[in-house]
Amino acid sequence: MAIITRDVDYEHDGVALRGQLALDDATDGPRPLVLVSHAWAGRSPFEDDKARALAELGYAGFALDLYGAGVLGNSTEENSALMTPFIEDRALLQDRLRSALAAARAQDEVDPGRCAAIGFCFGGLCVLDLARCGTDLRGVVSVHGLFMPAANVAGTPITAKVLALHGWDDPMATHEQALALTQEMTAAGADWQLHVYGNTMHAFTNPAANDPDFGTVYDATADRRAWQSIRDFLAEVLA
Amino acid sequence: MAIITRDVDYEHDGVALRGQLALDDATDGPRPLVLVSHAWAGRSPFEDDKARALAELGYAGFALDLYGAGVLGNSTEENSALMTPFIEDRALLQDRLRSALAAARAQDEVDPGRCAAIGFCFGGLCVLDLARCGTDLRGVVSVHGLFMPAANVAGTPITAKVLALHGWDDPMATHEQALALTQEMTAAGADWQLHVYGNTMHAFTNPAANDPDFGTVYDATADRRAWQSIRDFLAEVLA
Repeated sequence: MAIITRDVDYEHDGVALRGQLALDDATDGPRPLVLVSHAWAGRSPFEDDKARALAELGYAGFALDLYGAGVLGNSTEENSALMTPFIEDRALLQDRLRSALAAARAQDEVDPGRCAAIGFCFGGLCVLDLARCGTDLRGVVSVHGLFMPAANVAGTPITAKVLALHGWDDPMATHEQALALTQEMTAAGADWQLHVYGNTMHAFTNPAANDPDFGTVYDATADRRAWQSIRDFLAEVLA
Repeated sequence: MAIITRDVDYEHDGVALRGQLALDDATDGPRPLVLVSHAWAGRSPFEDDKARALAELGYAGFALDLYGAGVLGNSTEENSALMTPFIEDRALLQDRLRSALAAARAQDEVDPGRCAAIGFCFGGLCVLDLARCGTDLRGVVSVHGLFMPAANVAGTPITAKVLALHGWDDPMATHEQALALTQEMTAAGADWQLHVYGNTMHAFTNPAANDPDFGTVYDATADRRAWQSIRDFLAEVLA
């Protein structure tokens, strides 16, 4: 077995985007698809590695791109400037996410009927938004994601199963926001789960996170538990 | 492979108690121990089945007994009468739980250095109490457990890893109590996790539960997810 990767170029609203597809070449036939939605910096080696890890599990992993081919922030200011337009225009965010899904779904190696999405930090908000706007996915996993609801699609029934993996000391997703998420998901009729990790901050899966004052700290134990829960969830929803 | 079971008689405070040990006879050498703490009715086929399922995973499963050999409630009134003395005297409960652990740990097939506990409903409170009183266990899992803290051991450091599997619509463990549990576990220095299942009531692992007005309803999906999380947790803490 070997993991192969391939750039996938697509376009949305005049912006040239570039995702990366990862596959195990020992697998025959169409694979279930798992999108990987990037954190606020943009599509980086972190997300590409997750797509490869998903390929090792037998899925077609697809690290999507929201910002434009090669665009990657290098500071909190740059990252914030890249993310903010999408936080301020959730319809734009949702449309762009759907363009990534369509591009990935169209690949020959993908089973278009078995698709899920995972996302980290801002990417967690993104995959929740895919669920919130009624996208036809089997399931989504938000990993230390942001929980702000999307007013533009409020009231839309959620058919994707939802799993949120959440550090209880995450200052970017407060206890009040976590509780609001449970209410929102229930009201939308979602099959939802929230796994809370004690003594865990934002960005706990990112080995480079080491800024307790900012609220971002890697936690190897929570990272390992989160990956196990992602595996279990994908095995359930993509069976 | 065959699962064998054996009654284990023990005694606490003048009360004759009878647990059941379950083992895979194909396993050699001492196995990690997993206690199964019963719901409010007492040790029943439900808990014995869980001990056998744990034996199938390679553990020594031990369905403990808090009430007395053969004592099993047959109505909510009887169950409540059996449980209440222990809720009102947490020190008695904790002592009795430790007597069960000691009896199980003394069995030849058990590795006394690798022990964990799981419990259902009242049994969830029991395994949390084992953790709360500083018992030397690798981990405990509360499954739709009750969350009331134990004043007699408040402030004791918790060394066992803690996982609580919780239905968000459980009227016997309210949102406020779940939030209080997160505060209590953090203050006690515990490595803790809380997995919340949406649209899920109390007793969700019990196929006989079917009383939405009382707040107890079986949920096959939550049951399956909970068992997977128990497996993952035990594999982590008993490795």
